[in-house]
Amino acid sequence: MGKKKVAVLGASGYTGSDLLRFLLVHPNVEVTHLTAEKHAGKMISDVFPHLKGFLDLELKPLKSKSIPKDIDIVFAALPHGTSAQVISELFERDIKIIDLGADFRLSSKNYKKWYGEHPCPELIKKAVYGLTELNRDKVKKAKLVANPGCYPTSSILGLAPVLKNKIADQASIIIDSKSGVSGAGRSPSLDYHYCEVNEGLKAYKIGEHRHMPEIEEALSNYSGLKVQVSFTPHLIPMDRGILSTIYVNLNKRVTTKKLLDIYQEYYKDEKFVRISPEKLYPSTNQVRGSNYCDIGIKVNSNNTAVIVSVIDNLVKGASGQAVQNMNVMMGYEETTALEMPPVFP
Amino acid sequence: MGKKKVAVLGASGYTGSDLLRFLLVHPNVEVTHLTAEKHAGKMISDVFPHLKGFLDLELKPLKSKSIPKDIDIVFAALPHGTSAQVISELFERDIKIIDLGADFRLSSKNYKKWYGEHPCPELIKKAVYGLTELNRDKVKKAKLVANPGCYPTSSILGLAPVLKNKIADQASIIIDSKSGVSGAGRSPSLDYHYCEVNEGLKAYKIGEHRHMPEIEEALSNYSGLKVQVSFTPHLIPMDRGILSTIYVNLNKRVTTKKLLDIYQEYYKDEKFVRISPEKLYPSTNQVRGSNYCDIGIKVNSNNTAVIVSVIDNLVKGASGQAVQNMNVMMGYEETTALEMPPVFP
Amino acid sequence: MGKKKVAVLGASGYTGSDLLRFLLVHPNVEVTHLTAEKHAGKMISDVFPHLKGFLDLELKPLKSKSIPKDIDIVFAALPHGTSAQVISELFERDIKIIDLGADFRLSSKNYKKWYGEHPCPELIKKAVYGLTELNRDKVKKAKLVANPGCYPTSSILGLAPVLKNKIADQASIIIDSKSGVSGAGRSPSLDYHYCEVNEGLKAYKIGEHRHMPEIEEALSNYSGLKVQVSFTPHLIPMDRGILSTIYVNLNKRVTTKKLLDIYQEYYKDEKFVRISPEKLYPSTNQVRGSNYCDIGIKVNSNNTAVIVSVIDNLVKGASGQAVQNMNVMMGYEETTALEMPPVFP
Amino acid sequence: MGKKKVAVLGASGYTGSDLLRFLLVHPNVEVTHLTAEKHAGKMISDVFPHLKGFLDLELKPLKSKSIPKDIDIVFAALPHGTSAQVISELFERDIKIIDLGADFRLSSKNYKKWYGEHPCPELIKKAVYGLTELNRDKVKKAKLVANPGCYPTSSILGLAPVLKNKIADQASIIIDSKSGVSGAGRSPSLDYHYCEVNEGLKAYKIGEHRHMPEIEEALSNYSGLKVQVSFTPHLIPMDRGILSTIYVNLNKRVTTKKLLDIYQEYYKDEKFVRISPEKLYPSTNQVRGSNYCDIGIKVNSNNTAVIVSVIDNLVKGASGQAVQNMNVMMGYEETTALEMPPVFP
Repeated sequence: MGKKKVAVLGASGYTGSDLLRFLLVHPNVEVTHLTAEKHAGKMISDVFPHLKGFLDLELKPLKSKSIPKDIDIVFAALPHGTSAQVISELFERDIKIIDLGADFRLSSKNYKKWYGEHPCPELIKKAVYGLTELNRDKVKKAKLVANPGCYPTSSILGLAPVLKNKIADQASIIIDSKSGVSGAGRSPSLDYHYCEVNEGLKAYKIGEHRHMPEIEEALSNYSGLKVQVSFTPHLIPMDRGILSTIYVNLNKRVTTKKLLDIYQEYYKDEKFVRISPEKLYPSTNQVRGSNYCDIGIKVNSNNTAVIVSVIDNLVKGASGQAVQNMNVMMGYEETTALEMPPVFP
Repeated sequence: MGKKKVAVLGASGYTGSDLLRFLLVHPNVEVTHLTAEKHAGKMISDVFPHLKGFLDLELKPLKSKSIPKDIDIVFAALPHGTSAQVISELFERDIKIIDLGADFRLSSKNYKKWYGEHPCPELIKKAVYGLTELNRDKVKKAKLVANPGCYPTSSILGLAPVLKNKIADQASIIIDSKSGVSGAGRSPSLDYHYCEVNEGLKAYKIGEHRHMPEIEEALSNYSGLKVQVSFTPHLIPMDRGILSTIYVNLNKRVTTKKLLDIYQEYYKDEKFVRISPEKLYPSTNQVRGSNYCDIGIKVNSNNTAVIVSVIDNLVKGASGQAVQNMNVMMGYEETTALEMPPVFP
Repeated sequence: MGKKKVAVLGASGYTGSDLLRFLLVHPNVEVTHLTAEKHAGKMISDVFPHLKGFLDLELKPLKSKSIPKDIDIVFAALPHGTSAQVISELFERDIKIIDLGADFRLSSKNYKKWYGEHPCPELIKKAVYGLTELNRDKVKKAKLVANPGCYPTSSILGLAPVLKNKIADQASIIIDSKSGVSGAGRSPSLDYHYCEVNEGLKAYKIGEHRHMPEIEEALSNYSGLKVQVSFTPHLIPMDRGILSTIYVNLNKRVTTKKLLDIYQEYYKDEKFVRISPEKLYPSTNQVRGSNYCDIGIKVNSNNTAVIVSVIDNLVKGASGQAVQNMNVMMGYEETTALEMPPVFP
Repeated sequence: MGKKKVAVLGASGYTGSDLLRFLLVHPNVEVTHLTAEKHAGKMISDVFPHLKGFLDLELKPLKSKSIPKDIDIVFAALPHGTSAQVISELFERDIKIIDLGADFRLSSKNYKKWYGEHPCPELIKKAVYGLTELNRDKVKKAKLVANPGCYPTSSILGLAPVLKNKIADQASIIIDSKSGVSGAGRSPSLDYHYCEVNEGLKAYKIGEHRHMPEIEEALSNYSGLKVQVSFTPHLIPMDRGILSTIYVNLNKRVTTKKLLDIYQEYYKDEKFVRISPEKLYPSTNQVRGSNYCDIGIKVNSNNTAVIVSVIDNLVKGASGQAVQNMNVMMGYEETTALEMPPVFP
C-alpha cells in the first residue's frame, strides 16, 4: 500500500514548519501540498532555509478547491475563522482533518463569546478534542480532530489526574503559565521584536486569554465537574517551551509521595507523559523538540498541591500532538515519527 | 566635610559588583576597603574587568580586625553565618552597617528553623528590616539594617497595599516568582552552567525556599495579620530581573480600577515604586539596572486579584536598596546615586 | 547660568532612548523637545515605559519650524536623507547640532555612491566627523558634528594606533565585526523577530555594508594613507555590544607586548579607551551600558596582528559618543553624565 | 542478523548525550554499555532527565577490561590522553572504534607539540581522520576513526573546494570562528557560568587554539599544499552552532557566481553539505540539531573570497559526524539515524 498523501495548510509558520519536521520522516505519509498566503509562489526552502533538500514544493495560495483530490490527510495551521471555512468546504471529501487552530475546540456558545461568530457551528459537534491521552478512543474514530492549544495541553495533562480522582477543589484552581516566544507565531510585531523580548519577562492578557475557556471546558467535559481557573500567561525569553505551575487546593490530606503515585498510575500506559521523582521538577529544556509532557509535584504544608507541567509548545503543544492524533486516526503506531529523544542542550 | 569611607565585605560577587556601580558615583562616600575570600590578593579590576579604571583597590581577606578604623559604613555581602559573626565583632564601633545577607532578616526562632543556630541572636533585635518604603522611619535611626532578599522585596511591595487596607485574605496568598540567573550568585555549579539554564525554565525549592518565611514574617509584622503564602520560585534564562505574580483572594468586591487607585495612593510619595496603567503589566526589562519596582494589577471575574511586581534583583532586590538604605541612614537625599533611568534594551 | 535646552529628533528608537538615559542625568542640560513620526501625540513614557517618571513630554511630529526657538542643542537620530533635510533648515540658527545618522559622515562623492543624492551637499564640509578621540580639537569648534556609526567606532579606535604609527599594511585589513541586535533599530521585521535571531548567528551584507566606506574614509583622512578594508558584519543573539576582530599584516616584526605598549601610549590620556593586559581579550559585557571601548591584542607567529575592539553599540557606538561630543562642543567636562561603570552582568 | 552492540565511553557530557540521541533511533545498533567517571553508579536518566524512558542503563566507571566482550562498536568521548590509553587496550579486539577526542587527529610530531607526550604514538598511523566527505574511502576500511574537532569540521568543509581547485593562496588564510557554549563541555567553571557568558561575546586563545594545527594538517594532507591559517575562536551566547567566516585571497579573478558553481559541483553528491544561493548567507539556526554543513560565499571587489560555513558543533562537529562515520565503517546507509530536518526555531 502506498504512502498517504498529506496537505499542510498554512505551512510558513512555526507550527507548519514543525509539522514538516515530523511528517518528512514519517514512513506512512508523504507531503504533497503546501499552502501559505503571504509567501504563495515561493518554494518552501525559500521560506525555511533549514528545509533545503528535504522537500521540493511550492507554496500555493489557500483555496479549498485547489487542494488536490488525492489528498488523504489535511493539517490546518490557519487563523481562526479561516480554518473553519476551509474545513467546512473540505468536509464532504473522504479525508481525515486535523485542525491546529481554535475553531473546533470550544462549544459554539463559548466560541461565540470568546472568538465571535463561527462560520459553520454545525460542524463543531463532529469534531473530537484531540488531547490524545484523554480522548484516544474518540480520536480513533474521528474524521475531524481539534488539536488542543499549547497552554491547555500542559494545563490539562497536569490537572486530569487530580480532577478525575476528585481530590481537588475544582473551583479555585490557579494556573500560572510561562511560554517561549515561538508560541506567538512568525508575524513580525514590536511585541516580539528581539530586543523587546530578550532579557525580559512579562505577564499578558491576565484573566482574558482565550485558552482559559478551552481549559475549563475540556476539563469540565472530562471530569464531569464544573472547573474554574484563574489563568495568567507569561512571555519568557526563549524559543520553545511552556511551563505551567498549577495551584490546587486538595480536599483531603495527601502526601507528595502519594500524589506522585496517583500520577504514575494514571499515566502508566502513556508513552509521552513522564512523572518526575519526588523533589525534582522538570525544566522545559528536557522536553525540547519532543512530544513529551513531564510533570513534577509538591504538596505544600497548607495542603496546596503545586503541579509543574512542561511541554515543547510547538510539539506536544501543536505539531507533535497533531502527528500523534494522525497516527491514532490512521491506525499507525502512536509514536511513529515522534521517537527521537529531546534535543538537549 | 569629607567623604565617608565605605567598606564592602564580599566584593567579588554580583551583589558586591553592583554595589560598587552605585557607590563609585555617589558624591558623599568613597570606597576604601574591599574583601573577598577566594580572590584575596587580586585587584578588583582583575576580578571584574568592567571596573578597570574606576577603583584601584586590592581585595583583602575577611577579618574584622583588619577592617580599617576609619571606615564609617560597612556593606556586608557575605554567606549567612559569616555575616553575623563579622558584624557582631564590628558592632561596638561607631559605624553604620548594612547586611545584604539573611542573618538579621528573621526572628531568632524562625532563623533557627530555616537557617540553623545563629552566632549572635542578641543582635537580631537591634536590626531594622530595610524594606525602605515600609520602614523608612526605623531605618533612619538604625545602626544595623537587614537588607531584604530579592524575592521578598518584589513580593512585599506587591502585597503591602492590600494587606494594610485589609481587603485580602491573608491566609491563602500564592506567590509565583520568576528570577533571572544572577540571583544565584557567581559560584560556578552545574545548575547555573550556561547550557543547563539557557533556553529552559524550571521551578525549584517549591514551598521550601528560605525567602518564604521572610515574606510571611515581614508582612505579618507590617500588617498585624498572620500572613501565610505558598511560594514557588522559578529560574528564567536571563541575567537580571524578578517578576512575582501574586494571587490574592479579595474579601470584598473591588474593580481593577479601584485597586489601582489604592496602589497609586499608597505609593504616591515613593520615588522608586511605579504603578502601571490599567491593562498594562510591567516587564522586568523596564526596570533593568535601576532601583525601581513596577507594579501592574488585574482583578479577575472571580474576585482574585493578580498583582504583578517587577524589580531588578541585583538593584532594588539587593545593592540598590542597600544604597537607598544607606542614604536614609546617613541623611542623604534618598535617591542619591540611584537617579539614572533603567537600561533598556 | 541656566541649563541649556535640548531637542531629540527621533526619540522613539533605541538610540533616542539611550540618549535620554544620559541627558536626563546631565547637570548642564534639560530635554524640552522630542519628536517621533509614528508615535507622534503619545507621551514618551507610553513608548518607553522604563522612562515613566523621568520626563513628562509629548512626542511631536518632525517639522523644523516647530522646533522651539529656545533650543540650544539638537540631537538628530533620524533616517538618512531626512536628517540632512531638517539640519539644513536649522543650520542658520545659533545652535549646536549632533547628527547620529549617516548624512554627514562621508564625502559627497562617497555619499552619492553608497546612499544616493544628498539633500544639501554643501553642508557636508561644515561637519566634523565626531570620533572624539581622534578629532577632539575639531569637535570643540564644530557647529555640526557627524556622530560615527557603531561598526566604524569600534573599528577605527582599534586601527588608529597601528595606522598612525605606520606599522601596518593599510591595503589588506580585514574587519570581522559582530553586533548585538539593537543596532538594527526598533522597527519590527522578520529579520529581527525574536525566534529568527535567537540561538542563531549569521553574516550579512558581506563587503557591501555602508559602514565600510565610512571606515575607509575616516581612517584614510586620519592617517594620510589609502586604507582599504574587507568588512563583514554579523548578527549576534544579544541586545547590546559590538566586537570587531581586526586582522592586520604588520610591516615589521613587533611583539604582542610591544604592540600593547604602543596602544597604551597612544590612548594614555583617554578616559574612555582601555587596553586589556596581554593574553586577555575583552568581552562586550564588560562595557555594557557604558561609553568605553576596550581593546585586546595578539600578534600571531606569522606577524598578523589580531586586534579585538569592543563597545556598547548604543553608547560609544551612538548615544554616549554623541553626549561626549556635546560635552566637548559645549566646553563641559568630557565625561559628564557618562561616569557610571558598565552594567555587569 | 541482530543489532550491533555499542558502548559509549564518556556518556555524561553533551557529546555523549547527543550521540545517544542518534544511536537510540538507529535501526542497526543498540547501546548496551555506558561509562562516566564522576557520575559512575547513577542511571543515565539521572544525569540526563531528557533521556528518561529511553535507556535503562547504569553509568559504569571507565576500565577497558570491564567493557563487555560482546561490544561491536566503541565511541570514545573522553579527555585526550585517557582516550588513547583506553583505545590502545581495546585495539586488539575485533571492534570498530570512533574517537571523538583529539588523540588521533594529529601526526605524532604535532601532537607532542600541542598536547604533549602521546600514550601510544604507534597507533596514530592506524587511525583515519574522519572528515567523512573528504576521506570516505579510507573511513570505509578503518578500524579506528579520529572524529574531527568542531572548528576544524566547519573550516575544512569551507576550504576544501578552493584548495583542491588551487585557486587560493594557502599561506594567508584567516579563519574567524564563532561557537556556541556547548562546545566547552559540561564541566562547571566561571568561564561558562550563565551570567558570565550571556549577553556577551569574546575572543579567546587567539592564534593558540589546538584546533589550528588540526586544520592546517588536515587541509595540507588533503590538498598537497602547505596550508597556514590565522585562527581566532569566539564564544557566542547560544547553546549550539559554529559559524566560521573564512577569508581567502584568490589567486585568480573569480566571480561569486562562479565560485558558488565550483562549490556546488564539489559537493554535488554530498547529502550533508548545502550551498546557499548568491547573496544569502547561512545562519547557524538553520542547521541546529542536524548533521548539515551550510556554506555561503561572497567574493569581495578586492578578490578576497569570504566563505561562511555553519554547522551544529555537537552534531556535524561531533556526534552526528561520528554516527555518519560509523554508518560508513559498518556499511550502513550513510544517513541512517541522521535524517530528521534541523530544529528551527
